[in-house]
Amino acid sequence: MHAPSPESLAAAETAMLRCDAIAACSEEEDRITRRYLTPAMKEAHGKLAGWMRSAGLAPRTDAAGNLIGRRSAAPLDGSRPRVLLLGSHIDSVPGAGRYDGVLGVLAALAAVEAFGRREPLPFHVDVVAFSEEEGVRYATPYLGSRAVAGTFDYELLTRPDRSGVLMEDAIRAFGQNPRLLPEAAYRPEDVLGFVETHLEQGPLLEAAGRSVGVVSAVAGQSRLLVRLTGRTAHAGTRPMDQRQDALLAAAGVVAAVRAEGLATPGLKATVGRLDVLPNTRNVVPGRVDLSMDVRHAEDAVRVAAVGRLLEQAIDLAAAEGCELTVEENQNQPAVKMDAKLGARCGALLAELGQAGPAMVSGAGHDAVVMAAEFPAALLFLRHPGGISHHLDEAADVADVAVAVELLVRLMKRLAAPDDPRR
Amino acid sequence: MHAPSPESLAAAETAMLRCDAIAACSEEEDRITRRYLTPAMKEAHGKLAGWMRSAGLAPRTDAAGNLIGRRSAAPLDGSRPRVLLLGSHIDSVPGAGRYDGVLGVLAALAAVEAFGRREPLPFHVDVVAFSEEEGVRYATPYLGSRAVAGTFDYELLTRPDRSGVLMEDAIRAFGQNPRLLPEAAYRPEDVLGFVETHLEQGPLLEAAGRSVGVVSAVAGQSRLLVRLTGRTAHAGTRPMDQRQDALLAAAGVVAAVRAEGLATPGLKATVGRLDVLPNTRNVVPGRVDLSMDVRHAEDAVRVAAVGRLLEQAIDLAAAEGCELTVEENQNQPAVKMDAKLGARCGALLAELGQAGPAMVSGAGHDAVVMAAEFPAALLFLRHPGGISHHLDEAADVADVAVAVELLVRLMKRLAAPDDPRR
Repeated sequence: MHAPSPESLAAAETAMLRCDAIAACSEEEDRITRRYLTPAMKEAHGKLAGWMRSAGLAPRTDAAGNLIGRRSAAPLDGSRPRVLLLGSHIDSVPGAGRYDGVLGVLAALAAVEAFGRREPLPFHVDVVAFSEEEGVRYATPYLGSRAVAGTFDYELLTRPDRSGVLMEDAIRAFGQNPRLLPEAAYRPEDVLGFVETHLEQGPLLEAAGRSVGVVSAVAGQSRLLVRLTGRTAHAGTRPMDQRQDALLAAAGVVAAVRAEGLATPGLKATVGRLDVLPNTRNVVPGRVDLSMDVRHAEDAVRVAAVGRLLEQAIDLAAAEGCELTVEENQNQPAVKMDAKLGARCGALLAELGQAGPAMVSGAGHDAVVMAAEFPAALLFLRHPGGISHHLDEAADVADVAVAVELLVRLMKRLAAPDDPRR
Repeated sequence: MHAPSPESLAAAETAMLRCDAIAACSEEEDRITRRYLTPAMKEAHGKLAGWMRSAGLAPRTDAAGNLIGRRSAAPLDGSRPRVLLLGSHIDSVPGAGRYDGVLGVLAALAAVEAFGRREPLPFHVDVVAFSEEEGVRYATPYLGSRAVAGTFDYELLTRPDRSGVLMEDAIRAFGQNPRLLPEAAYRPEDVLGFVETHLEQGPLLEAAGRSVGVVSAVAGQSRLLVRLTGRTAHAGTRPMDQRQDALLAAAGVVAAVRAEGLATPGLKATVGRLDVLPNTRNVVPGRVDLSMDVRHAEDAVRVAAVGRLLEQAIDLAAAEGCELTVEENQNQPAVKMDAKLGARCGALLAELGQAGPAMVSGAGHDAVVMAAEFPAALLFLRHPGGISHHLDEAADVADVAVAVELLVRLMKRLAAPDDPRR
């Protein structure tokens, strides 16, 4: 396996130390919380813009609050240069880790820095720090990347946060003009591609002993709410064979969801929420609401799995004399990442001794939003311990160095005169 | 089957109409709520005391707030008369039905009325309306019967209700003196017996087509809190075969509890409460707390069943990589009702064409508290529809008439000179 160069390791170490510095920009004293357009984000912008300037990039903030640092192109032929976007998000969930999103921004900056200033590139490189991906403050994710992709929903501007602050007022308070939001969008013909580096938030790379993986698709997702209605009864007097226990039917559904997930390769099937009514020790439960979350890279496989699960749920409910109702809250198709850009990243990974199968992401990322408009690639970084959305979230400097080398090589390769995509 | 006499039916109808009148004594406009020592209870006392006087009984209120109406003895030999206690409770849960407890009091009064005033009895008959059985106001049940049985816990006197009113102040506000509580206790040697009539709150008599049943024992009860601790993980990224899903382990426990209940005759085993953490759609559950409620008339059978359930829970937790902790909140032995008094009631029931097997109560009643000190019998009344603690609670006038006839015959039989218990 290729060992990262001392320069890449140093760049990776700097990136990780910068993550520590950004982690200090928090709304809360004792943990990391950095929601959209908060003073904590403003503070993070200040640090990030400073590092961008030191690296020779020109930072600007768009109307959605994205911070974008540009390394300007030097096209040989005087043509209008296209743009390579590299980055991720810098907002966080409440009580976050220091690397989720932020590391993708700082790995991109590290790569541009490592690439150096002297060698000219025929395209702009924009290091982008999306302002909103987690969806915490306004209960809608991907606000930053949607603005850049030109798919921002302007009706959200009049939505209040929990304190009653409308999004448009939050944008103004952040020093931006919401009327300029359309100008935040990149034209698809201008964009060479977008590459996001993100912690895997899963165990596969760690299990395979790999530093970095290329994601070929983000799984499609079905979200369902299943309600089982039985009949409450006294736990001390109702005979066991005369019960209509909604929790017993629900237990069968939980087991069926696991069995379906194990039986269908690549499927993720989860009951994460389960609410019992009346939820009292001495009363046979009369009602249970439970969530089903089913994901797969192939929509047809996912839809078939959901169908089988609902058939089983119907049978389980009937066997216990319970009624079943199902509400489908989401049926989101899988998103394919750009095959060419992905293959290019894969080839570069192989050069770095990191060949491996393409991966499927079970979670959404800014790259999904970007992929709808631009050629987009998503790189996963090994996630030691797999702990996400928590202060114990970890990353390995050698893995970050591999990602940095990959991005540097990608910039070089895209600049080569024989590149058909330039 | 014996048809109740027109007189018994009329007495039963009166008893049920009186239940309607007591139902109107409520703390709430639109539903029945009558907690310990509230003005609603005072109002109920007023009505009940009036009916007692009309029936020739002398009502008094003891220091625990129990209303007791006495039909005085006329012993032939001048000896100190003993007392036969008949009754149940008149407090209620919030949103109660009109018959739970109250019907037992009014059936007792109806029996004494039907027995008539002229025929002397060699023992007092005390119709007792216990002031507190449900445990709502002070989070402790059986306050009324504990005072009569002499097992009242005096430390409770300084316990506040939700509004901060100490029990001793509530007793004073009700017009009683908490210092006189010891005098509310009956001496065991004075008590011929206690007979409580209560709705079954279960379906067995209805299923068997019987009006009244004799309870031989109140089931012992184990209450356990089981905590399963797994590991939270992202529902979209954690492979199905690498999960430590506390809810999956819990689902296995729920199914095991049902299977154990079905496999062990007479066992009631219930998971009524189940709380998931973090209880979020897209997170594999990291922790589940669930309750186990296990009841049986034979303590050895119950304890063995709990042991088997815990063994299975340990295996289920281990199979999913979860930790298991168990907290035993209650281990209450079964209580046998008085065999002689129960057999006597059973023989009288047979005379009334109502022969049937003795029953086990899965729920606690005042008779359990009384049984610790006095010969006590518990009669269950058929519960049409089985709905309890709800306005839709029902009772059948013909069934009540059977109970009234049984109590009348019991008074006669106990007064017979050959009765060894007098």
